[in-house]
Amino acid sequence: MKLPRGFLASGVRSGVRRRRPDLALVVAEQGAMAAALFTRNRFPAAPVSLSRAALRRSGGRVRVAVINSGCANAITGRAGWAAAARVRRRAAELLSCPENEIFLASTGVIGVVLPDSRVRAALPNAIARLAPGGLDAASQAILTTDAGPKVAAATFRVAGKRGRVVGFAKGAGMIHPNLATMLAFVMTDAAATPGYLRAALRRAADRSFNAISVDGDTSTNDTVLLMASGCLRNPVLGGDAEGADFERALASVCEDLAWRIVRDGEGATRVMEVTVSGAATTREAKLAAHAVATSPLVKTALHGGDPNWGRILAAVGRSGARFSPHRTSLSVGRLLLVSAGEPGAYRERDAARVFARERVPIAVDLGAGSATARVLASDLGHDYVSLNADYRS
Amino acid sequence: MKLPRGFLASGVRSGVRRRRPDLALVVAEQGAMAAALFTRNRFPAAPVSLSRAALRRSGGRVRVAVINSGCANAITGRAGWAAAARVRRRAAELLSCPENEIFLASTGVIGVVLPDSRVRAALPNAIARLAPGGLDAASQAILTTDAGPKVAAATFRVAGKRGRVVGFAKGAGMIHPNLATMLAFVMTDAAATPGYLRAALRRAADRSFNAISVDGDTSTNDTVLLMASGCLRNPVLGGDAEGADFERALASVCEDLAWRIVRDGEGATRVMEVTVSGAATTREAKLAAHAVATSPLVKTALHGGDPNWGRILAAVGRSGARFSPHRTSLSVGRLLLVSAGEPGAYRERDAARVFARERVPIAVDLGAGSATARVLASDLGHDYVSLNADYRS
Repeated sequence: MKLPRGFLASGVRSGVRRRRPDLALVVAEQGAMAAALFTRNRFPAAPVSLSRAALRRSGGRVRVAVINSGCANAITGRAGWAAAARVRRRAAELLSCPENEIFLASTGVIGVVLPDSRVRAALPNAIARLAPGGLDAASQAILTTDAGPKVAAATFRVAGKRGRVVGFAKGAGMIHPNLATMLAFVMTDAAATPGYLRAALRRAADRSFNAISVDGDTSTNDTVLLMASGCLRNPVLGGDAEGADFERALASVCEDLAWRIVRDGEGATRVMEVTVSGAATTREAKLAAHAVATSPLVKTALHGGDPNWGRILAAVGRSGARFSPHRTSLSVGRLLLVSAGEPGAYRERDAARVFARERVPIAVDLGAGSATARVLASDLGHDYVSLNADYRS
Repeated sequence: MKLPRGFLASGVRSGVRRRRPDLALVVAEQGAMAAALFTRNRFPAAPVSLSRAALRRSGGRVRVAVINSGCANAITGRAGWAAAARVRRRAAELLSCPENEIFLASTGVIGVVLPDSRVRAALPNAIARLAPGGLDAASQAILTTDAGPKVAAATFRVAGKRGRVVGFAKGAGMIHPNLATMLAFVMTDAAATPGYLRAALRRAADRSFNAISVDGDTSTNDTVLLMASGCLRNPVLGGDAEGADFERALASVCEDLAWRIVRDGEGATRVMEVTVSGAATTREAKLAAHAVATSPLVKTALHGGDPNWGRILAAVGRSGARFSPHRTSLSVGRLLLVSAGEPGAYRERDAARVFARERVPIAVDLGAGSATARVLASDLGHDYVSLNADYRS
């Protein structure tokens, strides 16, 4: 897939990982306005700290994103910080741009300092391979235990012009509640102010990336970057132009990437879509939805295709959300399993059929108010255990 | 093992489960003063609701505990409540005691109404088999996916007399965070007031059962019952006598049972003992300790014997506890892995050796205050997935 106008990308091997592409570049030829969301983990990785500060100092301008897999460079103290800074300095030299317009992201093992000499040595090759069609190589190079690359695209119209939004991401890990690093990079040719991009990205993430991982409940490296090249030469979004159609396209790309991340969760065989309605507050709706989505008992039942709905309500019951059991209802698909606290009349076979789908809709109505929340989550199977019991070996 | 004076017990088959003992009785011949702790899940099972109310109405007197496995009778609405009430009525008739002195507990599948006719039909046989040596049969009959029965005992002295505390429990499930039902029954021959028993049980549970499962973060059926027959004829604890030595024995029995429950977690091969110190508040110490203990990434690394300590600090970092990364330290066993935010000098081999133990001590110092918390948790392995993906089939 081609990048939006104004962007080039590449993906190469630097030797951080063995015999696998592990270094991706995204370059905005004329620079880009950008906004980013970062992990709220209290141990942000070195690249997260550096990129957050750089974005602030550059006033939201980004020229280059340098992304490596194989090493998260997190909880690596001063040595990790210095290694990331050396990569940034070298990229700035080679691309003749201010250091603060270099955006860094890393994913991989925690606690190991980035072998930055390998990354620096590979930068010239990565730069030489930059191309408008380099998205495939870049989307491959950022993967860790992902089953495959995750790319999504959409178009939008603003003031009669047709623009594009293209994104790529990596996920893996059970994502939720304790996700392995999630990285996402979204590019558009729209012209927009950094303030507008920040607000639009936050709204889109709320319905996508944040609906698969709780705020603050994230890995050391999670990062979402949105870059706008302005090559569409539209009236500036956030300035003169109204961005409803752009935001629709942005949300579509983010939701598509989020879905692929969950669907591709480590060892995942199916995905549940948990919707909680009738909560007293949005916070409580989220608490209940996340309690179901993170419950190992629910996730293993989902893996086994077993409609063991008692585990779902037991998770809701311990979530901290306030409600009366006598007003609570539960449906899977179109089957009403529990109505106002009483088990309904349904055939086990029908429930099992819903639980055998690739995407299992689970709806809980708390009967306590009008707030809602929705969360996507993968199941928990043997492959997850195998992948994580000896990820480092 | 023999019960304390004043108690009889039995365990029989009622047919709720196939070809397995599934009904246990504990009878206090002269009645007992009692205290209980119940789940805080918002979907308490029918036996939980009935027992809580009965204990209040009887002024803390319990004559009989009727415990079944194979069916939790939870989220079963009015039908489940009526089924439990019929078991209670029949037990009261057969044992000639007030209904409010019958204590019910159930464990097993959620969402299925107790087949109470089977339980009622089996009660005469269970009563006929009551014996001072019936503890073994009772401790077998309450198990579900447990690897084996869990029994613990201790002695104490009060006013020159030597008394006993004996308990039995069932656990299984990953216990934490989303435990399968935990049931524990603790008997003593001490004489004590219900108010004293309540306070003593709460203190003992805080260091044992509540250190393996968060307050409020429990299944629909969790119950801990403490019964005191008074046959020791000691000056009444909570009245004339001081109970320090009794409390030591009670804590020892509760901690022993809690350890056995975790050690026997579904598919568990080893146990981590997570200690968080230096927290700003006890609440934050618990948040951090439970974040580590419940992290699927930490639990699978533990299963693999992989000292992937980055996952431990990543869990602490997203726990919500306030601290500065630069003041945080992490040890496993006697190995200091991270000191004041910087990775320490240690040999990977030594860390792997600690992670290969049956009990892995993990200590995090947040450097933010003086509050501490300790949690025991099992690892997450293939057997857990197998057991839970098709528990009902």
